[in-house]
Amino acid sequence: MKHAIIGQSGGPTAVINASLLGVLRGALSAGTERVYGMVNGIQGLLADRLIRLDTLIAETQYGLLRTTPGAFLGSCRYKLPEAGQAVYEQILDILKRHNIGQFFYIGGNDSMDTVWKLSRYAAQTGSPIQFIGIPKTVDNDLAGTDHTPGYGSAAKYVAATVREIATDARVYDQDTVSIIEIMGRNAGWLTAASALACEGGDGPDLIYLPERPFSTAQFLADVQKVHETKRNVVVTVSEGVRLADGSYLCESLATGGTDIFGHKYLNGTARVMEQAVRSELGCKVRSMELNIPQRCAAHMLSATDLSEAEAVGFAGAEAAARGETGIMMTFARMADEPYHCTIQSAAIDGIANAERTIPPAWINAAGNGITPAFLAYARPLIQGEVTVPYDGGLPQYLRLCDLR
Amino acid sequence: MKHAIIGQSGGPTAVINASLLGVLRGALSAGTERVYGMVNGIQGLLADRLIRLDTLIAETQYGLLRTTPGAFLGSCRYKLPEAGQAVYEQILDILKRHNIGQFFYIGGNDSMDTVWKLSRYAAQTGSPIQFIGIPKTVDNDLAGTDHTPGYGSAAKYVAATVREIATDARVYDQDTVSIIEIMGRNAGWLTAASALACEGGDGPDLIYLPERPFSTAQFLADVQKVHETKRNVVVTVSEGVRLADGSYLCESLATGGTDIFGHKYLNGTARVMEQAVRSELGCKVRSMELNIPQRCAAHMLSATDLSEAEAVGFAGAEAAARGETGIMMTFARMADEPYHCTIQSAAIDGIANAERTIPPAWINAAGNGITPAFLAYARPLIQGEVTVPYDGGLPQYLRLCDLR
Repeated sequence: MKHAIIGQSGGPTAVINASLLGVLRGALSAGTERVYGMVNGIQGLLADRLIRLDTLIAETQYGLLRTTPGAFLGSCRYKLPEAGQAVYEQILDILKRHNIGQFFYIGGNDSMDTVWKLSRYAAQTGSPIQFIGIPKTVDNDLAGTDHTPGYGSAAKYVAATVREIATDARVYDQDTVSIIEIMGRNAGWLTAASALACEGGDGPDLIYLPERPFSTAQFLADVQKVHETKRNVVVTVSEGVRLADGSYLCESLATGGTDIFGHKYLNGTARVMEQAVRSELGCKVRSMELNIPQRCAAHMLSATDLSEAEAVGFAGAEAAARGETGIMMTFARMADEPYHCTIQSAAIDGIANAERTIPPAWINAAGNGITPAFLAYARPLIQGEVTVPYDGGLPQYLRLCDLR
Repeated sequence: MKHAIIGQSGGPTAVINASLLGVLRGALSAGTERVYGMVNGIQGLLADRLIRLDTLIAETQYGLLRTTPGAFLGSCRYKLPEAGQAVYEQILDILKRHNIGQFFYIGGNDSMDTVWKLSRYAAQTGSPIQFIGIPKTVDNDLAGTDHTPGYGSAAKYVAATVREIATDARVYDQDTVSIIEIMGRNAGWLTAASALACEGGDGPDLIYLPERPFSTAQFLADVQKVHETKRNVVVTVSEGVRLADGSYLCESLATGGTDIFGHKYLNGTARVMEQAVRSELGCKVRSMELNIPQRCAAHMLSATDLSEAEAVGFAGAEAAARGETGIMMTFARMADEPYHCTIQSAAIDGIANAERTIPPAWINAAGNGITPAFLAYARPLIQGEVTVPYDGGLPQYLRLCDLR
């Protein structure tokens, strides 16, 4: 029997290693002899930086690995070329040399692009190596699936943190505005999740998503309207909101950098809004970015998300054992309440590079909030608490460097 | 028997309501018939905005109140005048009219200034009303006490979050710098606490505190030195670090940038350092501010801090029952390990407006880290986990508006 290899790619999530564990356990359960990990994704594979996961990680360490944030194997942002075949040949040669028959890649849109291109090349050249995508992104913007592992925990962290900030904001007996910037370039899923904080507690009064054009004048009017009945206005906004002309709101402050995929670095959206409130409304205003903790706050996991992340990895290994290739594992929702999802799969070519945004009907008419349909969708995904291992007062996480 | 009144003032902490509960229970236990709360501190008292805490909060709600962040009674930032007596007379008249004999104020430096001035005025005018200060600040900068309630939980949140960010930063196979800005204008206690993350996990490589002058050239040299042996450098810095000339670092870099309204933008401290790294070292760099969650992340409490916050409130009520006035309750450390503190009190006149900074011997010679003595001091304060009540996947908190 051939061996398997697993890689992680793109920005980590708090449950990305639960998916790694799921694939590892699924592959071992299917009788795979060796399960390799590629250190730093495709980039590490190309440098032949492989490790044996099945021998490196003891079963007693599974629990620690499951709740460790950050990509345990290391990550990369590597884009396979559109044309040419040298690098494709090189990758298949390396896999063949190690007698690897199954290739699992845990990632988001860009990573699914990698899985798609490799599976296409394998099909074209008659290679029997199977390529399976395991979904992962806090952005929840992968097509073909009800939701993505990583989103539920990030949504729970965002909603809990926004509630705590709103509770803090409530203490002042004067007009205030608190603006909280949340991850989301083109899709507002994570920002919308802040609305969950309003159910039985303090939460945002106004929510701005990249799915709708942003108007500073309308935003200021919205704030003034809330101030008619409430002193402390709490606003959540996606980092990627754009003006009607399509330019990012934050571009007046942007440093001009782009990443390897050509994506502009976005930040400063909330600061631009803060300045607008200060100069136009003159009340006390503060802005903040929730930043990196949104994708790595493993001390605040959704139990639902954690178990699904592991299950989807396990199911990926099962699908490979059945001979499938060129697919991404997906979730199909059967019911909101009681919540029930089944794990399925979809052809990767329809998924790679497609971005799924919030359905228009889930955003309110004014474009400054969400509808109950969104809450029904998101609510099940944040359910359940996870107690991570603590030592010396702090959460304990597993590091590759501690095992080697 | 006369009644008691409690107020909260200044920026909240995650355990400020545990102290409120402690005073309430202590006063009731001492036989006080009525325990009032002033809504929005002294400012609310002056407007006669009093509520009956003993009848408003049922014992079944004590648990929820204990772990609620934000000042449950609302807060204020109000400075009593140095001279004149009109407002002092007014306050004492209001207290007298409600037959209040004990005044408890939960707060930091500015709030202790209020307690001091009121107790002085009462002494000068022969008023029998007692004034007791209950310490509270995430900054840990109050004089006369080993530490302050609120610091331990904020330190735990900071150390855990920095560890998670450092774990996330580790995934990249390229030189990176992550700069994390932490609260602390003149005292680096909270930033120094990030060093606890290094014990048995990932943590900061470099730590810059306001107790030492900051040099951008030295900072860049420090980063380069760490990069010799490590790809991913993690830096923590206090918001209030200053250059040798005494100016704040965040004032120093003239970017020439303006926002959409034509205002020059004053960058944050970490942002200034980010720009220095980008332009001088040219590697991947990101900066972030931990911001408001540092003082309100009640989902991540130190059990030690929580129980001490309640105990110091209770002890304040006991001190009042013994007839004391013009004091702040304090902690005196008996031992680091096993940790043991006793609750005592100190005359308020030596405490108000004095800021306690980190002892020079607890900062390393290079001025970019702390010594083991600091760790021995801080470690006990973050011990123990607290499970707050969850409902619908989110932490539940008590709101005054829900009870009235």
